[in-house]
Amino acid sequence: MNNFEYKYLFGIDSPADLRKLPESELRQVADEVREFMVDTITGIGGHFGAGLGTIELSVALHYVFNTPKDKIVIDTGHQGYPHKILTGRRDTLRTIRQYNGLSGFLKRSESEYDVFGAGHATTSISAALGIATARDIIGEDFKVVAVIGDGAMTGGLAYEAMNNCGVQKRNMMVVLNDNNMSIAPNVWALSNYFTELFTKPTAMKLRNNFKEMASQMNDFGDRIRFAVGKIEDGFKAVITPGMLFESLGFKYFGPINGHNVNQLVRIMNQIKDIQGPVLLHIMTQKGKGYLPAEQDKQFLHAIGKIDKSTGKSLAKAPEKPLPPTYQKVFGDAMVEIMNTNPKVVGITAAMPDGTGIDIVQKSHPQRVIDVGIAEGHAVTMAAGMATEGIIPVCAIYSSFLQRAFDMIAHDCAIQHLHTVFAMDRAGLVGADGPTHHGVLDIGYLRIIQGMVVMAPKDEQELRDMLYSSIHTYTAGPVALRYPRGNGIGVPLTPMKSIPLGESESLRDGKDVAILALGNRVYPSLEAAEKLEQDGISVAVINARFVKPLDTAMLDAVASRYSHILTVEDGQIQGGFGSAVAEYLAKLGHESPKLYMHGIADEFIQHGTQDELWRDCKLDAQGIAETVKHFYYTEQLV
Amino acid sequence: MNNFEYKYLFGIDSPADLRKLPESELRQVADEVREFMVDTITGIGGHFGAGLGTIELSVALHYVFNTPKDKIVIDTGHQGYPHKILTGRRDTLRTIRQYNGLSGFLKRSESEYDVFGAGHATTSISAALGIATARDIIGEDFKVVAVIGDGAMTGGLAYEAMNNCGVQKRNMMVVLNDNNMSIAPNVWALSNYFTELFTKPTAMKLRNNFKEMASQMNDFGDRIRFAVGKIEDGFKAVITPGMLFESLGFKYFGPINGHNVNQLVRIMNQIKDIQGPVLLHIMTQKGKGYLPAEQDKQFLHAIGKIDKSTGKSLAKAPEKPLPPTYQKVFGDAMVEIMNTNPKVVGITAAMPDGTGIDIVQKSHPQRVIDVGIAEGHAVTMAAGMATEGIIPVCAIYSSFLQRAFDMIAHDCAIQHLHTVFAMDRAGLVGADGPTHHGVLDIGYLRIIQGMVVMAPKDEQELRDMLYSSIHTYTAGPVALRYPRGNGIGVPLTPMKSIPLGESESLRDGKDVAILALGNRVYPSLEAAEKLEQDGISVAVINARFVKPLDTAMLDAVASRYSHILTVEDGQIQGGFGSAVAEYLAKLGHESPKLYMHGIADEFIQHGTQDELWRDCKLDAQGIAETVKHFYYTEQLV
Repeated sequence: MNNFEYKYLFGIDSPADLRKLPESELRQVADEVREFMVDTITGIGGHFGAGLGTIELSVALHYVFNTPKDKIVIDTGHQGYPHKILTGRRDTLRTIRQYNGLSGFLKRSESEYDVFGAGHATTSISAALGIATARDIIGEDFKVVAVIGDGAMTGGLAYEAMNNCGVQKRNMMVVLNDNNMSIAPNVWALSNYFTELFTKPTAMKLRNNFKEMASQMNDFGDRIRFAVGKIEDGFKAVITPGMLFESLGFKYFGPINGHNVNQLVRIMNQIKDIQGPVLLHIMTQKGKGYLPAEQDKQFLHAIGKIDKSTGKSLAKAPEKPLPPTYQKVFGDAMVEIMNTNPKVVGITAAMPDGTGIDIVQKSHPQRVIDVGIAEGHAVTMAAGMATEGIIPVCAIYSSFLQRAFDMIAHDCAIQHLHTVFAMDRAGLVGADGPTHHGVLDIGYLRIIQGMVVMAPKDEQELRDMLYSSIHTYTAGPVALRYPRGNGIGVPLTPMKSIPLGESESLRDGKDVAILALGNRVYPSLEAAEKLEQDGISVAVINARFVKPLDTAMLDAVASRYSHILTVEDGQIQGGFGSAVAEYLAKLGHESPKLYMHGIADEFIQHGTQDELWRDCKLDAQGIAETVKHFYYTEQLV
Repeated sequence: MNNFEYKYLFGIDSPADLRKLPESELRQVADEVREFMVDTITGIGGHFGAGLGTIELSVALHYVFNTPKDKIVIDTGHQGYPHKILTGRRDTLRTIRQYNGLSGFLKRSESEYDVFGAGHATTSISAALGIATARDIIGEDFKVVAVIGDGAMTGGLAYEAMNNCGVQKRNMMVVLNDNNMSIAPNVWALSNYFTELFTKPTAMKLRNNFKEMASQMNDFGDRIRFAVGKIEDGFKAVITPGMLFESLGFKYFGPINGHNVNQLVRIMNQIKDIQGPVLLHIMTQKGKGYLPAEQDKQFLHAIGKIDKSTGKSLAKAPEKPLPPTYQKVFGDAMVEIMNTNPKVVGITAAMPDGTGIDIVQKSHPQRVIDVGIAEGHAVTMAAGMATEGIIPVCAIYSSFLQRAFDMIAHDCAIQHLHTVFAMDRAGLVGADGPTHHGVLDIGYLRIIQGMVVMAPKDEQELRDMLYSSIHTYTAGPVALRYPRGNGIGVPLTPMKSIPLGESESLRDGKDVAILALGNRVYPSLEAAEKLEQDGISVAVINARFVKPLDTAMLDAVASRYSHILTVEDGQIQGGFGSAVAEYLAKLGHESPKLYMHGIADEFIQHGTQDELWRDCKLDAQGIAETVKHFYYTEQLV
């Protein structure tokens, strides 16, 4: 089936090899990169659409710029696959996003060509300006380029950076890779603005009219010609999308076709030596050149194994149907709640599908707001809504919500505004790796005065906690964290309220008490079964709440057990176990021994969730071993 | 001396009273507000310049809009004093920023006219959009206005919000109060851009030329007239500052004189019913109408008591000179270090004076970057610099650095980039109150993997820690926190390196060990002296490090003392004491009793620092009482 013949790609082990080729062969190179990428990624899965859109750009950048001496900062990593192929990672691409394999994002420790790693969007312009500033201060001489998608451009960090570029006026180039669809259908006002302009048939006519008129004006004398020149500038500003960037101090070029590699090379060569910040606006197509991806962009943002020719999934159907994902359960529960409570509003920051908010969008389109990649705004806007009695539910990935830490503290908590944070992808997320693991949320949220912080053990408890967050805990901000992936498979029952701060005893035992949080409750129960067989009798309590703690339960447990172990899918420092340690320290009487089990003070790399939980000893086996070690070691002391 | 006669002000107890007056009297009202404000604030101190600039605006807003039904969201509170005077707080203004007095910012609990409180800049547009969204969902009918300064406009949150306004297209107005000098001299590219345009003599000529030319074109036929109309739009876009806002979907009006109250009223009335988001750009002058404030804007941002006619400080000279502030010591130490290390760069987010970076700006202007109110960008840019071997020192207030939490974790820590955070105003800051207290930093920073977090006991230790942060702890991000205000008065000696994670024993004792952090070390020593007289023998250890902890010290203390008390100027939950609790829980052998002393899980209001420390029992007296209670209560158990 594959009759494609590679001519150059397997001779390109670094960009230096690419730069030896004549410009005329770059189209062929781009085609080969595309064929190779489709071949590889359909076989293993990965982020797909974005990379197919940046093939010509990646070829052009490494051809025009003298990498790695020149620095190319690529925003987020989804678009970085062609860059990886061209920078020595062609043969390892098949390991991408797998345990011990290449990262799905750029990563400094992976390659000297990965100048600045990023899993969160919108950092590239700031980082590139930092590099350009360092260059100028040290007195070196190289080029700096940031590549950023239009989706990432909705983030405030991009604006802060562009504004500062305009002030600092350092030599650097920003390439705006505009595919008009970040992850979700685009919600960028600018994008709407551009689209409106370019779809107007008058736009091109106007340009022509203007030229014609200008040519008729030769007789009008100098004064008017001067004015006309200025008017032409104005005219250009209105009918080109450069307004925003020029107002921020950039020299703007574009938009040009991002799939014409020779034009890209030509234009980059023409503008790369311009003084001051330059913005090159290119239009690209996600999934470009691979038909199934072009036709279903949303689906092909990130894929599993698929059939290369049809684009259909090759994942084996599970023997019995999997339980619904937490995301689906969340979306359905939101719909159920919103059907009867007209004050509830869902908010997403460009992740409707990932969070399950897409389900709500279908049933209550007027009560879902997608703000783009703008978590800070999502939260402050939610606070504004809450002042009017709306109950906003912000569904934001745990690690992305880090961007809104100050907004939760300063705008929601200080004002005691009832706002709900449904934190998807809390804990280890798997293939996306360290930038996406949601392992800091317990720590950064429980320190905020008056917050409620909790985690459900399964999908029904997620429903109950969501219900309680909206209807019961109304005194201020409330956060619930739940993991990526499928639920436990428990039956779904009507939602009910959980008393604030009440834990749940699930298993009795006499030697050790495990206080488990969220998705570590079931593995802890399983560990307890194993330990029973080894002669250790273990109680398991579903903690539910990080804040407020169930102090009655803690008092009871502390007085009854000599050994307590906390288990959580998050960093130990400042986490749930830390909250328990604070409480026990305060008790005053003889404390039991406490072992806080969770993620150590290091960054966990990527792999499947199961691989990572195993490595962190957070699966049932690991929890059982940890308890055993803790219990016996202590006995020996 | 004061011959000013009040005619209306003392009859205005709410905006409804204001709205009974004829429009012709508003100038008089504005003059009275100004006189009253100058009179009051020169007598007690407070934020001064910003409020003087918004007097006419405040009068016009409350005259045109039906407050409190219509909602006016005022960004940050500095500009809110005239609003307070007009909304029932005229007679309590003299208590502003004082213990139990009015807040220096807007505050929901203080007045129904304070729609949304804020001490951190840039939240108003997001909050206003949230309110407008809530209004539309609930089906109510009122106006929403956000008032934001040009300084706050440098924050990315404003851009995220404006962009989202353009998408949502809800009816609301943003008033851009442009005084061209946020807190520091303006660093806004847009501002530069406007200034350039308006200072060009050609700008006005061009407008005139254009009009003249357009009028001569009557004979050219429809086609060209149509084109000319479009060109006029383009022309306006270029020579008015509306480009940015129009590109984001706003209808732009302005700029107009913000001190002509009747024009403000007229224009607001004309545009308040326009559909969709509207931006009104007004030009104002900080300190307007008070000569000493007009002449020295920087000084008069916030003042102490001054002589009303001269603007000279009335603060009594202290009997002996006060020790230098931590900010001055920091600035001087930076200069000293940068004199010999060319790789060190200082970064500030619009607070050069507040942080002491202004001292560095004078000596090393090329190596200080002021990014505007853009903490996120400051940190990601710093990370970019660090990739090139620069050692960036970000001097940012503790509570403002909350905005950059994700950037510290995602851009600095994951990549192990050596970046230094000099966190000024850590702990209770005094008159600025809950939005500015730097009480969360220990908690949110110590959870980040691999961070170094520390606090100096005095100004010499600040020097040593800064030196160590730059030259010794180079494996990743490093944060040092120090308080607002004057140092202890210790002699300044050459800077030296402190071994990473090494505490310092300052006083021996046999009953209780106090582990004190940062600015609570000296009060703890004082408390120990008091306690000695009461028969309790107290050891005091200067902890220095929150992370890494001095575990050798903790082991020794745990084995020797039955009672340990940690003391910190920050929230207890997740704080320094919490880190100690985690370590002791882990020890496994019999733990000593641990009491974590710090700030309880609530928001501390404003007052002087001494008043607040006293209330929180964090002064020497309070620490002594706490130790006594802890020690004796425990003895009784």
